Amino acid sequence: MDLIKQLNWRYAVKRMTGEKLPQEKVDRILEAIRLSASSLGLQPYTVYVIENMELRKKIQTVANNQQQIIGSSHLLVFAAWDHFTPSDVDAYIQNIASTRGTPLAGLQAFKTAIESAVTKPTEALFAWQARQTYIALGFGLMAAAVEGVDATPMEGFNPSGLDEVLGLKEKGLRSVVLLALGKRDEASDYLVHAKKVRRAKEQLFVHLP
Amino acid sequence: MDLIKQLNWRYAVKRMTGEKLPQEKVDRILEAIRLSASSLGLQPYTVYVIENMELRKKIQTVANNQQQIIGSSHLLVFAAWDHFTPSDVDAYIQNIASTRGTPLAGLQAFKTAIESAVTKPTEALFAWQARQTYIALGFGLMAAAVEGVDATPMEGFNPSGLDEVLGLKEKGLRSVVLLALGKRDEASDYLVHAKKVRRAKEQLFVHLP
Repeated sequence: MDLIKQLNWRYAVKRMTGEKLPQEKVDRILEAIRLSASSLGLQPYTVYVIENMELRKKIQTVANNQQQIIGSSHLLVFAAWDHFTPSDVDAYIQNIASTRGTPLAGLQAFKTAIESAVTKPTEALFAWQARQTYIALGFGLMAAAVEGVDATPMEGFNPSGLDEVLGLKEKGLRSVVLLALGKRDEASDYLVHAKKVRRAKEQLFVHLP
Repeated sequence: MDLIKQLNWRYAVKRMTGEKLPQEKVDRILEAIRLSASSLGLQPYTVYVIENMELRKKIQTVANNQQQIIGSSHLLVFAAWDHFTPSDVDAYIQNIASTRGTPLAGLQAFKTAIESAVTKPTEALFAWQARQTYIALGFGLMAAAVEGVDATPMEGFNPSGLDEVLGLKEKGLRSVVLLALGKRDEASDYLVHAKKVRRAKEQLFVHLP
């Protein structure tokens, strides 16, 4: 597998065929998302994996009618948490303790560090947690490329409208970005043969040797 | 290459050996970052690639004295743009036109869409551009895992202090996250044999079939 070749193969597909992806490919992409890095390991987001077409049609009405919402095989909605409560901290510490067989007492310093990190005004906490969500988006995009699965990240939607469709607000979640997984429609996607445009490495990177 | 295996192999290394990575591995990780997706393809960030040890020691003083700042082979500083000016828009449109051989007239609608998207209050623009930066961070992390290169994402630093060390403010940049690339120090990193802790898939994902 040549990673750079796969990253050149991928692009933000505008039209998808509606074909269903093999489940094992979807499962590996989700597993890559689950293994994503996040600050302090908190993973402060929930990912909706939506196949239901009726629901996707509703989502399309708050997402600029974009075709990939219904043309994809699976639509992922990344929702960042707007909170990180003491019981969320406890659940995480418990998870570490049971996964690693570490006594809780040995995790007290780390717990205190987390409590301090999540003590932020609501908007600052959400902004921070939304950033973590974008790392997971990056993992999903790259895993899709590795699997030869088309994937389109999408910000062009009304977040509060989508939150309402999915009932996110009452769960303490806010939609931040979508990822449509599917298959490019070579016949109708105007971008299918377009060359990839990226900033030259001389512009993107500053080397300080 | 088993991607999931590599993602399980990676972790946020706390102690690095100082060994230099093969340049071709670093180059492929940087190329993956360059190929990262971003909203509208804007890539509104600059990535500093720092080997200079004197500079890294200065950075360490504004980064909680973390060992990886100097123990890494290459330290990457992801700095998001705090602006997206009309001339930035022009440069991007010119890049598309010359890469794809598209006449500028055919890009007018897209140009108008970009102008509208980047017309935001400064803090909102920066927050949006910082999110894009985190996708690139995700690409860098995952490419490192694929290359068998250790990589630690780091938020534990004083952004305005780091901006001052690198002179970022006057360039319209703000540091948002670091990525240390190097080699884990198996002898001294207390996390080297720790099991990976992640939320269970039943908790992270909500399936709506």
